[in-house]
Amino acid sequence: MRKSPGVFIVGAGPGDPGLISVRGQRHLEVADVVVYDHQVHARLLRSARPGAEKIDVGPAAPRALDQDAISLLLVEKAREGKTVVRLKWGDPFVFDSGGKEALFLHEQQIPFEVIPGIPATIGVPAYAGIPITYPGAGDVVTLVRGNEAETDAPPNLDWARLAGLDGTLVCYAGARQIGAIAHALLTNGRSPEESAALIYDGTTAAQETIVGTLGTIAQRARPKPAMLVIGAVVGLRDHLRWFDDRPLFGRRIVVTRSREQAAELVDMLEERGADAIQAPTIRIAPAEDLPALDRACADAATYDWIVFTSANAVDYFMQRVLANGDIRDLKGVRLCAIGPSTAERVSRYGVRIDLTPDEARRGLPDDARRRRARRRSGHLPDAARPPD
Amino acid sequence: MRKSPGVFIVGAGPGDPGLISVRGQRHLEVADVVVYDHQVHARLLRSARPGAEKIDVGPAAPRALDQDAISLLLVEKAREGKTVVRLKWGDPFVFDSGGKEALFLHEQQIPFEVIPGIPATIGVPAYAGIPITYPGAGDVVTLVRGNEAETDAPPNLDWARLAGLDGTLVCYAGARQIGAIAHALLTNGRSPEESAALIYDGTTAAQETIVGTLGTIAQRARPKPAMLVIGAVVGLRDHLRWFDDRPLFGRRIVVTRSREQAAELVDMLEERGADAIQAPTIRIAPAEDLPALDRACADAATYDWIVFTSANAVDYFMQRVLANGDIRDLKGVRLCAIGPSTAERVSRYGVRIDLTPDEARRGLPDDARRRRARRRSGHLPDAARPPD
Repeated sequence: MRKSPGVFIVGAGPGDPGLISVRGQRHLEVADVVVYDHQVHARLLRSARPGAEKIDVGPAAPRALDQDAISLLLVEKAREGKTVVRLKWGDPFVFDSGGKEALFLHEQQIPFEVIPGIPATIGVPAYAGIPITYPGAGDVVTLVRGNEAETDAPPNLDWARLAGLDGTLVCYAGARQIGAIAHALLTNGRSPEESAALIYDGTTAAQETIVGTLGTIAQRARPKPAMLVIGAVVGLRDHLRWFDDRPLFGRRIVVTRSREQAAELVDMLEERGADAIQAPTIRIAPAEDLPALDRACADAATYDWIVFTSANAVDYFMQRVLANGDIRDLKGVRLCAIGPSTAERVSRYGVRIDLTPDEARRGLPDDARRRRARRRSGHLPDAARPPD
Repeated sequence: MRKSPGVFIVGAGPGDPGLISVRGQRHLEVADVVVYDHQVHARLLRSARPGAEKIDVGPAAPRALDQDAISLLLVEKAREGKTVVRLKWGDPFVFDSGGKEALFLHEQQIPFEVIPGIPATIGVPAYAGIPITYPGAGDVVTLVRGNEAETDAPPNLDWARLAGLDGTLVCYAGARQIGAIAHALLTNGRSPEESAALIYDGTTAAQETIVGTLGTIAQRARPKPAMLVIGAVVGLRDHLRWFDDRPLFGRRIVVTRSREQAAELVDMLEERGADAIQAPTIRIAPAEDLPALDRACADAATYDWIVFTSANAVDYFMQRVLANGDIRDLKGVRLCAIGPSTAERVSRYGVRIDLTPDEARRGLPDDARRRRARRRSGHLPDAARPPD
C-alpha cells in the first residue's frame, strides 16, 4: 500500500476490530494521521504505524470536536501533505457524518476516498444470532436514525406508515428513546407481542442481548445506548446464537507472556470467545553488556559449540552478529538448539543446526543444574558448552 | 489463525475484493473448503490456500445447486472434519440465504460462525458517491429485497405505506422489476422528479452509474440487475463521486511482469482506478541444470567474487546454497549486487555486500556487452566475475 496525500474516510465496523475491511486496514497501517471516533476499538489504533498521529474526536473524547471542527481538521492535515484516515464506527454513510465531511473535503478540493464499513445496524444483530432478513419474515429492512443522547421523542418519522410496514426495524438509540419508539409503534397498531431485542456492546467481548416483546422491551433497557431490533427474525436467535455461545465467552483472561510472544495465545483465546487482556509480566530485552556479547560474537568461530536455549536468544544473538559482521562469521562452530521452535528460529537465519536434543525440559529438579541452566542462557561462554 | 472444524459463513462484500473483513479474509486463507457464490471476486478465491477445494454454487455457476443442496454440502464437508468457508456476495444476512444455511447447520449440530460483510445495498452506493443517509435528507433507509430474475411484479410490500416514508430506498433488482418499483412508488404519490440512480457492477472496475429521476430511470435501465437508489441523497453524487473519478478509471491495463513481481504494480494501478490484468509474459524459473549450479555452490568459497544481477537470481542461488548446506558456505567470497533492490535481497540472507556499483544499467548499447550480460545472468561461473 503506497501512501497518497488526501483523506480516506474508513468505516471501522461495529466493534470487533477484525470486522474492518482489508482495504481499510491497509490504509490505516500507512496513514500519517488517524482521526477517530471514540467507539473505535483500541486494537485498530494500535495497528497504525508507530509514528502516526492519532486524534480522538468522538463525542465522549476528552478533546471532542464539533462537526465543523472535525472537517476543518481533516482539511488542515491533508493540506500539510499528509495521508489522513478518518476512522468511523460502523459505516461512514449510515447515520453518520461521513457525507458531511466528504462534502466539505470536496468543497476544499481535497482528494478523498470512502471505504465502507459493516454498519452496526447489520453487524451487531448478526453477532447476536439475528439475521435481519429471512425468507418469509419480511422483504424489507428499515434502518432508523436514533439518538444516543437521552430524549423522550422518537425519531422524526411518519410512524403510522412505518408501523404498517412488514419486516425488520433496526435502530441504535438511548434508553429513553427506545421506550418512545416502542410506544410510537404500539399506538400505530403494531402488536405488543412482536419480538424485539436489545443488544449492548455488540460484537465485543462484553456483548449482551436482551430478548423480549415490543410491549415489554423498553422496561428492560439499561441506561446506555442499545441496538434495538424489532421483527419476527428476533426469534431465530434461539437457534442461531453463536458468538456468545462460544466456550470462553464472558471470561476475561489475562495473558502474562511478553508482548512479542502473546499474539498467538491471545488469538486462540479470542477465537474461543474470551476477552484476552495483555498484561506482560515478562519483558524480553537485549543484553545489558553489549561489548562483552560483541567480543564473544567476534570470537564465535573459536568456540566448539553455540547452544541456543530460546527463540529470543537466537534473535538477540543474531542481531549482534549481523551488527558486527554477517552470518558467515559463524563458519566452523557447531550449533545446538534446545526445543524445536528454537531450532526453527535458527534455521530462519540460513544456518543448519547440528544438534537438537530429543528432550527439552524446563525447571529441572536439581538446584545445581538449575543454576547452570541460568548461567547458560545468560552468558555466551557458558552457552557455548555442549548440552549434557 | 488456527483452523477449527465447522462452517464460517462469510460476507465477501459487494465486489471489490478489498472490502472483505480482515476476519473473513483470515478464515478464507486457512479454509479446507470454500463454497462460494458466483458473484464473488476471483481474487478472493485466489487468496485461499493452494490445496483448498473451491466449489462454485452461485446461481450462474456451471454446477449451480439449489438451496437445500448447498446446505447439505456444507454439512457433509464439515462432517469430514474440514474447515468450511461459505463465501457470500455482500452480507450473509441481508437478502441472502445465510439465515437458512445457519439454521440447517444448527439443526445438524454443526458448529458455525457468521462473519458479516458490507452489504451491496450500502457499499455500492458509497462507491458511486451516494451516501445512503445524510443529515436533513431523511432519517430512515429502507432496504428492499428485489428479484434479479426478470419479473414485472414489484416486491411484495405495502407500497402505499412505503411510498409515504421519507428517506432513501435501496433495492437490487432486474431491469423489468426496476420499472415495476418506480411505477408502484409513482402510483402511490411519490414525485416523478425525485432523484434516482442505477449502479451496475458496483465497486468493480466496470462500475457504471446512471442518474435520473423516478419518472425516467426505468427507461434507461440496461438488461441486467442494478442497484437502484431512490432519494434526495442521489443528488450528492455530483459532489461526492470519487471512485469513478480516479485518473485511471475505465482503463484496462495489462501487466506483463512475472506473477511474483506484478503485485506492487497491480496495486498501484488499481489504487488509481485502473482494471489491472495480469498476463505474465515472463516466467521466472529455477535453473534447468541443477547439478552444475549445485557444484558451483559447493565450490563457492573458491571464487573471488559472486555478482548477483537481480533479486530473483539471489533467491534461486540462495535456495541451492541452503539446499546443500548453509549460508556460512559463502565464507570468504566477495559479494557484488547490481542495483539496490538486488543488494537488499542479498542482505535478507544475513550476509553483507562488498560492492554495489553506483550505476545499474539495463540494455547496454554494444552488442558484445549485451551478450556478455546475458551470459552473466545465466551461468554462475560467468556471474562470479567482478563487474567491469
